[in-house]
Amino acid sequence: MTILSEKRPTTPDVEPDVTIDVAHLEHLLLGRWAEVRREAREFLRDPRLHRDESLPMAAHRERVLEQLRILAREGDVLRAFPSRLGGADDHGGSLARFEEVITADPSLQIKAGVQWGLFASAILHLGTEDHHDRLLPGAMSVDVPGAFAMTETGHGSDVASIGTTATYDPDTEEFVLHTPFRAAWKDYLGNAALHGTAAVVFAQLITARRGEQPVNHGVHGFYVPIRDPQTGQFLPGVGGEDDGLKGGLNGIDNGRLHFDHVRVPRRELLNRYGDVAADGTYSSPIASPGRRFFTMLGTLVQGRVSLDGAAVNAAKIGLTVAVTYGNQRRQFAGPGNDEVVLLDYAEHQRRLLPRLAHTYAAAFAHERLLQAFDGVFSGASDTDEDRENLETIAAALKPSSTWLALDVLQASREACGGQGFMAENRMTGLRADMDVYVTFEGDNTVLLQLVAKRLLADFAAHFKDADTGAMARYMAGRAADAALHRTPLARVVQTLADGGDVRRSVGHLRDAETQRELLTDRVETMVEELAQAVRPAQKAPRDVAADIINENQHAMIEAARAHADLLLWEGFTAGLAKVEDEGTKQVLTWLRDLFGLTVIERNLAWYLIHGRLSAGRARSVSSYVERLLRRLRPHAQDLVDAFGLAPEHVRAEIATGVEAQRQDEAREYYRRLRASGAMPVPEKSLSPERRRA
Amino acid sequence: MTILSEKRPTTPDVEPDVTIDVAHLEHLLLGRWAEVRREAREFLRDPRLHRDESLPMAAHRERVLEQLRILAREGDVLRAFPSRLGGADDHGGSLARFEEVITADPSLQIKAGVQWGLFASAILHLGTEDHHDRLLPGAMSVDVPGAFAMTETGHGSDVASIGTTATYDPDTEEFVLHTPFRAAWKDYLGNAALHGTAAVVFAQLITARRGEQPVNHGVHGFYVPIRDPQTGQFLPGVGGEDDGLKGGLNGIDNGRLHFDHVRVPRRELLNRYGDVAADGTYSSPIASPGRRFFTMLGTLVQGRVSLDGAAVNAAKIGLTVAVTYGNQRRQFAGPGNDEVVLLDYAEHQRRLLPRLAHTYAAAFAHERLLQAFDGVFSGASDTDEDRENLETIAAALKPSSTWLALDVLQASREACGGQGFMAENRMTGLRADMDVYVTFEGDNTVLLQLVAKRLLADFAAHFKDADTGAMARYMAGRAADAALHRTPLARVVQTLADGGDVRRSVGHLRDAETQRELLTDRVETMVEELAQAVRPAQKAPRDVAADIINENQHAMIEAARAHADLLLWEGFTAGLAKVEDEGTKQVLTWLRDLFGLTVIERNLAWYLIHGRLSAGRARSVSSYVERLLRRLRPHAQDLVDAFGLAPEHVRAEIATGVEAQRQDEAREYYRRLRASGAMPVPEKSLSPERRRA
Repeated sequence: MTILSEKRPTTPDVEPDVTIDVAHLEHLLLGRWAEVRREAREFLRDPRLHRDESLPMAAHRERVLEQLRILAREGDVLRAFPSRLGGADDHGGSLARFEEVITADPSLQIKAGVQWGLFASAILHLGTEDHHDRLLPGAMSVDVPGAFAMTETGHGSDVASIGTTATYDPDTEEFVLHTPFRAAWKDYLGNAALHGTAAVVFAQLITARRGEQPVNHGVHGFYVPIRDPQTGQFLPGVGGEDDGLKGGLNGIDNGRLHFDHVRVPRRELLNRYGDVAADGTYSSPIASPGRRFFTMLGTLVQGRVSLDGAAVNAAKIGLTVAVTYGNQRRQFAGPGNDEVVLLDYAEHQRRLLPRLAHTYAAAFAHERLLQAFDGVFSGASDTDEDRENLETIAAALKPSSTWLALDVLQASREACGGQGFMAENRMTGLRADMDVYVTFEGDNTVLLQLVAKRLLADFAAHFKDADTGAMARYMAGRAADAALHRTPLARVVQTLADGGDVRRSVGHLRDAETQRELLTDRVETMVEELAQAVRPAQKAPRDVAADIINENQHAMIEAARAHADLLLWEGFTAGLAKVEDEGTKQVLTWLRDLFGLTVIERNLAWYLIHGRLSAGRARSVSSYVERLLRRLRPHAQDLVDAFGLAPEHVRAEIATGVEAQRQDEAREYYRRLRASGAMPVPEKSLSPERRRA
Repeated sequence: MTILSEKRPTTPDVEPDVTIDVAHLEHLLLGRWAEVRREAREFLRDPRLHRDESLPMAAHRERVLEQLRILAREGDVLRAFPSRLGGADDHGGSLARFEEVITADPSLQIKAGVQWGLFASAILHLGTEDHHDRLLPGAMSVDVPGAFAMTETGHGSDVASIGTTATYDPDTEEFVLHTPFRAAWKDYLGNAALHGTAAVVFAQLITARRGEQPVNHGVHGFYVPIRDPQTGQFLPGVGGEDDGLKGGLNGIDNGRLHFDHVRVPRRELLNRYGDVAADGTYSSPIASPGRRFFTMLGTLVQGRVSLDGAAVNAAKIGLTVAVTYGNQRRQFAGPGNDEVVLLDYAEHQRRLLPRLAHTYAAAFAHERLLQAFDGVFSGASDTDEDRENLETIAAALKPSSTWLALDVLQASREACGGQGFMAENRMTGLRADMDVYVTFEGDNTVLLQLVAKRLLADFAAHFKDADTGAMARYMAGRAADAALHRTPLARVVQTLADGGDVRRSVGHLRDAETQRELLTDRVETMVEELAQAVRPAQKAPRDVAADIINENQHAMIEAARAHADLLLWEGFTAGLAKVEDEGTKQVLTWLRDLFGLTVIERNLAWYLIHGRLSAGRARSVSSYVERLLRRLRPHAQDLVDAFGLAPEHVRAEIATGVEAQRQDEAREYYRRLRASGAMPVPEKSLSPERRRA
């Protein structure tokens, strides 16, 4: 309603001179690993790798296994592994490549993720040289398809509480791997239902010395053969079940595993972070069991990093289809003879363009995350703080982008109407596959709580003795700069100190600093309020403390979401700074503004309640959003074209130009009919006499 | 964040004495056609009718066709048809029964909808006695599976613009049915790909008299045989294609049809609203071509009405699964030995309980819609205004409930984590099937624009000469009473005149009148602002007018959504008034309040910007929502149990109690282990000496 009180021209205020340099923008979006991504995309045009939607589950699984072997042979999938084993020690490039695989089939991406990103990576990161030499070659080549047996039916995101036990027996120098009850069955494991011949199994490592109570050293990984590679039968003591049909990703043979006192030789403990001597003595380079656990899990952060990138790529496909179709399909009569192109409708723009802006923000933010990941794993910037920051950013962005992918694919499919529901147009299948991304590799809601805890811990660590709100301004530095250390803390604090009434007019909303302040201020205020609210929990009895935390759970999650929004905005702004072409810079600035303003619009009540925006200024947020939509509309096609996806990546019938042909044919038919004079006249235009006749 | 400043006890403020009479509530929810619904549910427990998720498309289609024949024989599916042809003239009961079919398989529901609700209903409502006698028996018995050939590839929701033509040839007394270009192919038609042997085909009816220009009388329906029932081959001149795999509903053989100068005898024009004499003279009981078109389409409103009810039923299934599982599954350690039940987490309550409230509101609102439908179609209250109101309410509720179903099923699936993604737990498949409900039978966005146009037209009709905002208060009556004429207009207007500052404290939010005023005020203000904004379009040139309307398109859709929210709230409140049991009334009042307050919370910025709520009062909205969540949490299971769905309707493995068994087994295991003294001690609890040892 906010647009109503404003006088402005009714024709779209398009600036026709502004154009995007699509090739330049495409290169920018490809990021640091542009060459790797280009090669991957070229490779992924191969129809052998593409999803065949017509296949039932069993055939789809076999096809994906075969595709996995093609990747192993031809797909340059070993970049992350050590050079001495045939890899390239290229961690960032490896993930960049992996993220592109989603265009072929998300099942293939995740099957590859299970094999190389989880199973082989666990051997690499949690094992030591003996494991690398003995076990990695088979895992890397897929001679040994492997499962990553962490999750249990009764324990998903709470890995520390899994029920499977590995009890050391010094007499035989073996661990006894055991599943004590049904809820401790390993579940949802790719490669477990059919193809896996080995698994890295996570279990509570228990040692005992004679006469003493057994000690639980927490969760550790063990390399365990599970099937006879010849017969495909489970080995003695190992059992399992097929998870069967799923909501998506049916090219992967997810299944369950359980163990009945299976004996695992001592050397198969992946012992980089915890070892057991022949006599049962436990040792670890990390004294604190808690820190050790998080260090072990932290080596597997690449899963979350790459899901973030893959989800953004899925969103790109959806938008490419919907914008292309929206620029061709016509519906309902316009002012002239022709019907109106869908994307000329204001509501259609409202549905697609803010999501396009969000996807750009997510793409740029992901590029920074990937660089941070590469910094840590290459050792270039690998302090404890770097690792912790990486994990926090990944925990913030993975929920944000995976939910974005679902939202974008759904909006894109709806924007294409009935066509959007046809499997040949790709969006429903892609959405079904992406669905589980929001709950696996760390349930999104659980991850956001981790982020909030980190924000609170940082807040507490810096202000142990302080109680004033002003000191909480520290959070601005953390949140705004997203732990990537680009903006000096001092400057942000200074800007904020100057702030408070910088938002003097509509024009200010265009100002990047205003947007940054509004977004940053929200995060820091939320964290500050949260810190005050949960402080009583520190001195309260355990049950009361739990209640206090629980009552603030929703606020914690909201704060973490606000933090993620800020990371996206900062990522977009950093990406924008690299644009050289003036037209491209102009359009991307509008797009960044659209992202920032729609985040503010979504949280407008918060800004009003907290006195950060007046009612008048709040109205201007929506009117500026609408103005941006009109400005961006002519550039929508260029903006999706800059994603650089070839028809072999998109593979949607309606994005091939067929709709434009249909519309042109129909318009030509009516044009000729009108010209011939044979066009039937509408009954309502008849004279009353003739109607009565 | 708003809860933080408030002092209140940290233990949940549950009132343990309050209990729900589940049987009473179940009966209330079943509504006027309780017996019909109960019988339908009993019938639908039959496994022959259930979806088999493992079937590939071709087998699924055959199974659904067979199920359709079972319905025809045993399913009491002909209630809506005339008694003289074996029906029961029971329009409301027929839809009530039909809505329940979704529990068996949405494909079966929609296949039945195509056969009886569209194909046979078109013969019934658009045809006359000769058609009824000749054509209805085969359509009713499914001896003639039929397609409803309205939508074209190039024209979905804009039916008036379809390209197919039926040109009358007086020499042979036939219509020549023709598809002039590819965009005019009929598309997405159930029964068209395989099973249909006839179709009701919609085409522009064109007549010509010698020497005069041909006249287009608009869209009319024709009964057209399309396949040889023996061979299954298309008849001469008819062609088509299979739509192939879809995002869901793959038990239906959707397909495309096209016609190459197919000759249709004159008597096969369904001629109730428009007829052509042997010499080509057109006649109609409705003079205005526009009114005639909407009258013909209006006879098919039952599609939208029943989709509304079916969507609510799908949401009930999702919530039954998620709440049941959320009450059994445990995750993360609690203050004691046990892990915490999911539904005890505040965020889990936030995810599920407002959706439960929304689903109740939608269920009650649907019951009123169904009664209005029955009033019109039974003739009990069948004025033009009744029909128009029915169509407007259906156009408002169908988008609301179909989007709700998608939202609820997704939230439910996510709330069940990995289990939610397993096909055996039903939610992903159901969601995939429901997906197309938001764009078929009138795209949701297009329907909301119809609603907004109606709101604006009513506004304009009553205040042609008036310009003051005060007079717009009329809208309150329209919107609040939802055209069901329960609340005298005068009283509502009076209440509003008194209003303006009734919301004096938090306590007032509990007051139904406050909620009604806040919701009503928003609708009327939005419509008033909209009317002012689009007024210049009346006198503007056509292109400028189109721009003005387009610029306000988003505001129109938002106003229509606000109207739908109000309809839901009014429906819930009316349902609540029928509750006799005190405990049930108390819990349902909380639930109604939760619905009302979450709608207000979602639009909080609007209330703040428009000065309807102060910042302080706006904060209290969220804190009251959180209080309601705690109060409702102990009743969540009763509230889903009152949906009255049997295990044969829900058919989700995790809603069978299996999770409670697993959790009990795990807890028992640890209890015994602790009791035995053999429980391993955590490493971190060891003395420093022993850890060093």
